[in-house]
Amino acid sequence: VLDTPYLAVDLDVLDRNLDRTAAAVRAKGLALRPHAKTHKCPEIARRQLDRGAVGLTVATVGEAEVFADAGVTDLFIAYPLWPVGPRAARLRALAERVALRVGVDSADAVDVLAPVLGGTAAEVVVEVDSGQHRSGVPAEQAAAVAAAAERAGLRVAGAFTFPGHGYGPGRAAGATADEAAALGAVEIDGPVRSGGSTPTVALADPAALTEVRPGVYVFNDAQQAELGTCELADVALTAVGTVVSATGQQVVLDAGSKVLGADQPAWVSGGGRLPDHPDARVVALSEHHATVLFPDGAPPPLRRGDVVRVAPNHVCAAVNLADELVVVRGGDVVDRWEVAARGANT
Amino acid sequence: VLDTPYLAVDLDVLDRNLDRTAAAVRAKGLALRPHAKTHKCPEIARRQLDRGAVGLTVATVGEAEVFADAGVTDLFIAYPLWPVGPRAARLRALAERVALRVGVDSADAVDVLAPVLGGTAAEVVVEVDSGQHRSGVPAEQAAAVAAAAERAGLRVAGAFTFPGHGYGPGRAAGATADEAAALGAVEIDGPVRSGGSTPTVALADPAALTEVRPGVYVFNDAQQAELGTCELADVALTAVGTVVSATGQQVVLDAGSKVLGADQPAWVSGGGRLPDHPDARVVALSEHHATVLFPDGAPPPLRRGDVVRVAPNHVCAAVNLADELVVVRGGDVVDRWEVAARGANT
Repeated sequence: VLDTPYLAVDLDVLDRNLDRTAAAVRAKGLALRPHAKTHKCPEIARRQLDRGAVGLTVATVGEAEVFADAGVTDLFIAYPLWPVGPRAARLRALAERVALRVGVDSADAVDVLAPVLGGTAAEVVVEVDSGQHRSGVPAEQAAAVAAAAERAGLRVAGAFTFPGHGYGPGRAAGATADEAAALGAVEIDGPVRSGGSTPTVALADPAALTEVRPGVYVFNDAQQAELGTCELADVALTAVGTVVSATGQQVVLDAGSKVLGADQPAWVSGGGRLPDHPDARVVALSEHHATVLFPDGAPPPLRRGDVVRVAPNHVCAAVNLADELVVVRGGDVVDRWEVAARGANT
Repeated sequence: VLDTPYLAVDLDVLDRNLDRTAAAVRAKGLALRPHAKTHKCPEIARRQLDRGAVGLTVATVGEAEVFADAGVTDLFIAYPLWPVGPRAARLRALAERVALRVGVDSADAVDVLAPVLGGTAAEVVVEVDSGQHRSGVPAEQAAAVAAAAERAGLRVAGAFTFPGHGYGPGRAAGATADEAAALGAVEIDGPVRSGGSTPTVALADPAALTEVRPGVYVFNDAQQAELGTCELADVALTAVGTVVSATGQQVVLDAGSKVLGADQPAWVSGGGRLPDHPDARVVALSEHHATVLFPDGAPPPLRRGDVVRVAPNHVCAAVNLADELVVVRGGDVVDRWEVAARGANT
């Protein structure tokens, strides 16, 4: 018996998710470079590489350091890095020990990256905005950034984009088309055209892309289930909570936002989902309380003291709150995995 | 120079916030028992106790253990605990080393608490629902829970409520009145009537309450500023980020939801606020990106590479993501405080 709340990973579901996406990406002839920000966990990285992943994607120098320490030799920091101060030396040290790619989206950043990465084998990849309008340049400006990088002595591997505007009901197909159009319009010699996200990876266009970078697919989450990317039965990671209070059709669990994370886009049904009680809704989430409402018509199937699983809305946020993942198979705890890159934000 | 993003605490603003609330609560003749879930930090607990706090409030047994280890001798776990499994022994051990109070909101929970706390000096406090409709019983049922506790051999200190429905524009006065009405209606011999939250503490009714439990007031945050509980200048904790990308009126910072937290109630202006740029809005927040929009009419005052402070919407969530707080005074780093109770959710 473990004290709740904690994060549990169903190993069979995890392996099924890993197999399914590895096979689907292979069938398209694309390289799979999973985003490790989701799991932050060397044991899962190893399972991805064993299934043919060409390397990992990470978001920060700190995440790259953790996975390099764990023996991963090919890392893409898919982020418009600005390496000054201690981060400059940390990035250079990484470039000297692993095959490294980093994102760039401006000539200003080229000026900062060039002295750090010059003379190493590290490559830069130009970030293109395919419609999320976060970072990245329009596709037609990618060649200019690449040319600036080459003039500064940097190696240019190609271009990447994140079709993040595919996160919303009915948006995946349009965002995937935008991704293909943006990467297809890039005029850079370097061969890499990297895209992909969990909602769009099944639709990724192999005529426009060379690799994909989904992250969430390893675990899935309530958002993906509500988007239709997966079923609730495909959710491998859940917070395990105890019913601590109850009244009428409502029960309160001890798994709140400090375990689940607080991500809640306008289109989701609540603060998470209960895979074993699909009719229930998480109508409110505070730090240590999930308020769960069951439909009228029958007494709630949960009583005080019952233990129940909650799928977080956004699993990347939940993992980043935990020191370890409790690994279960068939109801037994079979392992514990450290979230080695938890909080590695710099 | 520190690598961004990180959390910085302005010591002068912190001390001013601590002084102000301690004085206001003292002037009302109320006891101050601050909620330490906000800061999770023994150094700040010490500053609260030095200013007259009667003890601390915490949310979990794990938080209580951290503060007991740090020398705090009077702790209230303001939560409807369900101590089974390892948590039962942990709670009993706490009851034997500090003055301990714990929440209870049902006769079922009395049955679980009684064998754990029986024979110790620990007290239970009945949770009353004053309008948030999360945990707690209606005020008129509090006496029955108290009677059940006494029959089971537990000591009953009184009643508590959390007027969490005061979190919203224009709602603080109504929630404070509800708090006073609920606690005033409780018929329990035990003298404690504990309420309070940061938005309501200034209005707390000393005729109905004996103590208040605000938490956020130590740091304040973007939510409190937008509620009008404080000014942006009163925000003591900010995430420090770097501008990594820019286009038009938009800049992107490396301080995203993995540093700020993702709390975003419908009534806030965005994903946080920039205290040094009050006209800017955080229009989108992803894990490692804050997308900040400046109003039309003038070029944005920030360029790539600039370092800027962001007030999180909900500071409790931000602190729980960090291993340490960087303490600054007049622009200099003067200390680093461990977030000792980070992740202490069980």
